[in-house]
Amino acid sequence: MNEGKQQHKNPIPTVDTIIQKDSQVLLVIRKKDPFKEKMVFPGGFVNEGETVEDAAIREVKEETSLDIELENILGVYSDPSRDPRGHIMSTVFVGRISERSNNREPMAGDDAAAIKWIDLGDIEEESLGFDHKKILMDYKEWKQSKQTYWSSKK
Amino acid sequence: MNEGKQQHKNPIPTVDTIIQKDSQVLLVIRKKDPFKEKMVFPGGFVNEGETVEDAAIREVKEETSLDIELENILGVYSDPSRDPRGHIMSTVFVGRISERSNNREPMAGDDAAAIKWIDLGDIEEESLGFDHKKILMDYKEWKQSKQTYWSSKK
Repeated sequence: MNEGKQQHKNPIPTVDTIIQKDSQVLLVIRKKDPFKEKMVFPGGFVNEGETVEDAAIREVKEETSLDIELENILGVYSDPSRDPRGHIMSTVFVGRISERSNNREPMAGDDAAAIKWIDLGDIEEESLGFDHKKILMDYKEWKQSKQTYWSSKK
Repeated sequence: MNEGKQQHKNPIPTVDTIIQKDSQVLLVIRKKDPFKEKMVFPGGFVNEGETVEDAAIREVKEETSLDIELENILGVYSDPSRDPRGHIMSTVFVGRISERSNNREPMAGDDAAAIKWIDLGDIEEESLGFDHKKILMDYKEWKQSKQTYWSSKK
């Protein structure tokens, strides 16, 4: 461990959340670069003083208006080349829509231009931003395996 | 998501790894503050350009001389008060000792003053540094549940 004052640079932490309803997964269309107009999971940067779980819930609320509960961690993705802005790692949660949001349609907000529900059966042909396609493929496997995942996991 | 240049401060990412052999878990005695002389999991800061999985393997090697393979992610712990140096989050892996290190005794190195094997049955009475006692209790539960964990998870 590098002790005391941090002399080294470190990856910057983000969170993303996978929310499935029936056979579909909730994605948002990005309003800005990088990956402007691409589909991604709702998510964003973790603030200092905020836990990753609180950041995940806050980002879904900001981008989709939905209240969620977190169920599991799918994995932690930290390949240095996964984000063109720099070394940005993501803790990816699996969540579900809370009771109180259950009958509400999500509304795009903040950095999300629109909401997109994608059928899990159709994802092979879809193009997603960042490494979210790989994450979605890992999620499909996770539904059977209940393992956890990371960027270089075989 | 805060786009472009990061204006906000973010938690600093670390990794820790739980390695069990027979009924015992591998801990190291810290050489320095914070938690000097306390037992903790081998681990440390993730460097920019390094994945969390590579950081976990590197830190175990530096602190215990052992080669390991990673099997799963136990959880991500990011309570802002878990480390007195600042907001430091940890991705916690479960690993196993690699074939080639299997018959070797671990040797303390780097920031580890000594190696300590603790029987999982005895951990209730042990005192660990940081939030590693909580993490070890979650690990005991994980062995049954195969769920994932985070700081505020009930």
